[in-house]
Amino acid sequence: MTDTVDRPALLWHDIERIRDAAPLVHNITNFVAMNTTANGLLALGASPVMAHAAEEVVDLAAAAAALVVNIGTLSPEWVESMRLAMRSAARAGRPIVFDPVGAGATAYRTESCRRLMEETPPSIVRGNASEVRALAGASSATKGVDSADASETALESARSLAGRCPCVVVSGAVDLVVSAGRVTRISNGHPMMPRITGLGCTATALIGAFAAVNPSLPDAAAHAMALMGIAGELAAAKSPGPGTFPVKFLDALYGITEADIRARLKMEID
Amino acid sequence: MTDTVDRPALLWHDIERIRDAAPLVHNITNFVAMNTTANGLLALGASPVMAHAAEEVVDLAAAAAALVVNIGTLSPEWVESMRLAMRSAARAGRPIVFDPVGAGATAYRTESCRRLMEETPPSIVRGNASEVRALAGASSATKGVDSADASETALESARSLAGRCPCVVVSGAVDLVVSAGRVTRISNGHPMMPRITGLGCTATALIGAFAAVNPSLPDAAAHAMALMGIAGELAAAKSPGPGTFPVKFLDALYGITEADIRARLKMEID
Amino acid sequence: MTDTVDRPALLWHDIERIRDAAPLVHNITNFVAMNTTANGLLALGASPVMAHAAEEVVDLAAAAAALVVNIGTLSPEWVESMRLAMRSAARAGRPIVFDPVGAGATAYRTESCRRLMEETPPSIVRGNASEVRALAGASSATKGVDSADASETALESARSLAGRCPCVVVSGAVDLVVSAGRVTRISNGHPMMPRITGLGCTATALIGAFAAVNPSLPDAAAHAMALMGIAGELAAAKSPGPGTFPVKFLDALYGITEADIRARLKMEID
Repeated sequence: MTDTVDRPALLWHDIERIRDAAPLVHNITNFVAMNTTANGLLALGASPVMAHAAEEVVDLAAAAAALVVNIGTLSPEWVESMRLAMRSAARAGRPIVFDPVGAGATAYRTESCRRLMEETPPSIVRGNASEVRALAGASSATKGVDSADASETALESARSLAGRCPCVVVSGAVDLVVSAGRVTRISNGHPMMPRITGLGCTATALIGAFAAVNPSLPDAAAHAMALMGIAGELAAAKSPGPGTFPVKFLDALYGITEADIRARLKMEID
Repeated sequence: MTDTVDRPALLWHDIERIRDAAPLVHNITNFVAMNTTANGLLALGASPVMAHAAEEVVDLAAAAAALVVNIGTLSPEWVESMRLAMRSAARAGRPIVFDPVGAGATAYRTESCRRLMEETPPSIVRGNASEVRALAGASSATKGVDSADASETALESARSLAGRCPCVVVSGAVDLVVSAGRVTRISNGHPMMPRITGLGCTATALIGAFAAVNPSLPDAAAHAMALMGIAGELAAAKSPGPGTFPVKFLDALYGITEADIRARLKMEID
Repeated sequence: MTDTVDRPALLWHDIERIRDAAPLVHNITNFVAMNTTANGLLALGASPVMAHAAEEVVDLAAAAAALVVNIGTLSPEWVESMRLAMRSAARAGRPIVFDPVGAGATAYRTESCRRLMEETPPSIVRGNASEVRALAGASSATKGVDSADASETALESARSLAGRCPCVVVSGAVDLVVSAGRVTRISNGHPMMPRITGLGCTATALIGAFAAVNPSLPDAAAHAMALMGIAGELAAAKSPGPGTFPVKFLDALYGITEADIRARLKMEID
């Protein structure tokens, strides 16, 4: 069904709140995407902090407005810090966004995700179709860290996961945001986006910023994914290739207007 | 008072010396800014090496022309390597530039900085106002790794720190370079700069390159900060947003001329 | 002598195979170049995975189509993971490309390379002249991680190394690809390339992608180096400095055509 609210206005309101409040978003993320996600959060108007030492993550996760955990280049010490940070954020009532990069590609990844999510269920999980299927225990070979599957193939897995944590995002050409009794589909984006590393991780980080200002987890997730897609469309229109794209993408995140959102948003809620 | 020397000529002379000598600058820095700072040093004409293993930092710190230590994504193993490298650089008579990223944000950061600086006082410390206040023991809540305060609020803290190490830089809209009996203020720069991650870290790294060729620590620090600000102005003039900015900034560092410096430098010495 | 085959067509054929198959390339590489090399592989059409935990590298190295090991920011734990991954890739019959960043700059680097290469000889080694000389035991001071020497000064060292592993690449203004009874020289490239960090590491990673689709190791290495050089020429033509260069370089990797290669390739085989 079509959205019954003025969705572009709601999305824009979240962006304005982020720009005003500059919420502190604590990221424990991978080495590849750290710079990209920090710049994404800054371009949007949030205040990123990247920190992973067990000696300080408990303090930071409680002090920040949201916690983003991304296992992209995991190792046992980092997973332990993720565990501590997730527990601390949960105790402090902060939203936790979890990115299971490459779940299903190795047993170590899948198991690490399962353990982390069992001890402290995240508020929102964002993965591609293979990752979400792997988390839900569905059999599916994940090839590396890139998804081979369309997002709809993970709908049932996402519904199953959404019984354990409030909101699950499956990203792809169409993004699904799945929560109890609701599926939101966002069709914004551009085929060049999977050709740039760290954009999925950036999506996860931006969800953290939105969740810091919007208490509705499905809305926060859907707004972040729509913003990613729209900024991606704006960037792709000016990009001959994947070198120019991230430059224009950050410029778009920084300069996006309510009119851009109103003109481009493609979101449907079931 | 106004500078009594031809400051643009002195700054330009340092840049020429860096381009000629390509001094090796050893960086132990954070995961977020490693790429950015290495590219900043290369664009300026220096030769960066990023290395953190305890097994080699003693050798490298003694062999390099300057050591840059940045605690941005610290952990106990890295702090130990920083300690070894700082001791080695000091023994070899190399300038040491120290960046206390996020000091004050967690007790772990503040304490790690204090221990490192006590064992081997750095030649130059560069931080934002909250970080410098935290190092000096002033009470101030640091929000994450970005400064909430104007640089002048840290002037007394910088003076106090400058009793323990020769030169302290407080960066902000106006940068302060504080050493015994002298305060230099640099008003170059652009409001977009805090919206890009790693530019503060790049400033610290460039100070290392200047300190490698100019034995006056306050001059080296002031020249590096002025170059950062001027390159930032040149970049901002061509940048619609924080995606384009770092691209134009490196181009500006690489292509800057004495005329650019002469036209834009805003430095006052008290 | 001049190549007796239609070399541009062969190189182009490899690129098409990479774009079609999107081979999974497992990278254990340094913190500085991770993002750059992942984006380079994606722009070319390959599928990168960056993973270093001992808990998963054995699985990934066997599953991937090629393994790339780069010691740029090595530490004992990472070297152990490199060892495990190289052994696993060798058992699975996968090509292994090895980048001895900074070999010769510290005893730790040189020794770590020697131990890794002795236990599992890589398929292809790519370094600059000082690094290759250091690996071969020739006396030469390496200054940091940038080469001070022209590639021809390492020809004998490369020949000596090529007795221990099938193919050795010495990169420089002229790249040498040395294997039993054959030396290929590639004169593509641009003087701005050494002013950007991580391009050598990107070359190594692209060799991995070519080796994944072309069983001739010298051809795979020569094609990758030629593509690097030609994409560098295309990028430099549009770049006022080293900020713009990486942007245009990825665009060029993504958009390169057979005509570009035919017009620019400068390869000679002895």
